[in-house]
Amino acid sequence: MGKVNFDVGVSLDGFLAGPNQRLEEPLGDSGEKVHEWMFRTASFGREHGQGGADGATDRDDEIVRERTENVGAYIMGRNMFGGGPGGWDESWKGWWGDNPPYHTPVFVLTHHPREPVPMEGGTTFHFVTDGAESALEQARAAAGDKDVQIGGGADVIQQYLRAGEVDEFQLHIAPVLLGGGARLLDGLGNDEIKLEVVRAEESPLVTHVKYRVL
Amino acid sequence: MGKVNFDVGVSLDGFLAGPNQRLEEPLGDSGEKVHEWMFRTASFGREHGQGGADGATDRDDEIVRERTENVGAYIMGRNMFGGGPGGWDESWKGWWGDNPPYHTPVFVLTHHPREPVPMEGGTTFHFVTDGAESALEQARAAAGDKDVQIGGGADVIQQYLRAGEVDEFQLHIAPVLLGGGARLLDGLGNDEIKLEVVRAEESPLVTHVKYRVL
Repeated sequence: MGKVNFDVGVSLDGFLAGPNQRLEEPLGDSGEKVHEWMFRTASFGREHGQGGADGATDRDDEIVRERTENVGAYIMGRNMFGGGPGGWDESWKGWWGDNPPYHTPVFVLTHHPREPVPMEGGTTFHFVTDGAESALEQARAAAGDKDVQIGGGADVIQQYLRAGEVDEFQLHIAPVLLGGGARLLDGLGNDEIKLEVVRAEESPLVTHVKYRVL
Repeated sequence: MGKVNFDVGVSLDGFLAGPNQRLEEPLGDSGEKVHEWMFRTASFGREHGQGGADGATDRDDEIVRERTENVGAYIMGRNMFGGGPGGWDESWKGWWGDNPPYHTPVFVLTHHPREPVPMEGGTTFHFVTDGAESALEQARAAAGDKDVQIGGGADVIQQYLRAGEVDEFQLHIAPVLLGGGARLLDGLGNDEIKLEVVRAEESPLVTHVKYRVL
């Protein structure tokens, strides 16, 4: 069986996204700065259908490639699929474009039942209305020997951390202060979760640190 | 002229100290876990008069030594000197022992005027009642060509960061979640402070990351 992990960029003050997240600015004010190191890589360009031919091919690029190479299914919250005002009728297929960067089944936690939505490139969005545990069971079954990656948001990641379901995670810590927004590691109390550093890697634009949950 | 810096251990969720800081537990609940990597080093043992002969002499140990070697004066808040309930009469010399690990002038921000307190080993506590800017002027004058290090707490560090007075800082990020307490990087808004990674170093117990403020 694969592992359950998450792999996200955070600001130095711990935010996944800045304040004032909205449809036109899903990462919130200045939130895109957290991911600048990633946007410039060749792998990110390829994943997001922008070719990536002129992208960086350094260690950051390898790390972008690594983060998805063993993932067999994703779990995400409704907002990460593409919530937002008015965004939940049957014609709306999320904000990841026609060919989302997942290329596997994606299990979306929601209260609104909906038929699965197959997309180009192997991504199918499945909508799970009976809770996080059920989503994880379904994702594990779909992933087989591969890993399940929890995409976000912060609340979804916290839910699985608290439940003791996360085996490993990687943070890409950007030298940026957002001052507000969605804090990744919040309300995760004292002594409940024991961690160990697997590795830390330096880059001029970000620090990559991987943790194992004991 | 030297630089103004700070150099502190934080939990992965960004706390300098855990919840419920009190006289018997000045680092708060589980707060000492943030510093375990440091307590085990030979340099820490020597600095704190515990000999250190059986301490670790690895890269963590070098980093502990480096963090103070060019410091000519410190600034700290009243609580870091040794505030706490009832702890402010003339006989109270803080909780750093007879021979504090500073060995330089230390400027303590407070509202209570008090004569300087010379200690063993070269530390003298000076009490500054006319604000952070005055403390920095006095510390710079005392440090000469050496650096001024802001010891803490979080509120004091934030004050100097906000005022644009910090040139560099190092965080020792421990794989520990405290879930509450004194958050180092809090209320430091969006776009006011620009940072650059100077270096990041891996260790099994902590990740050392040094930043320059642009």
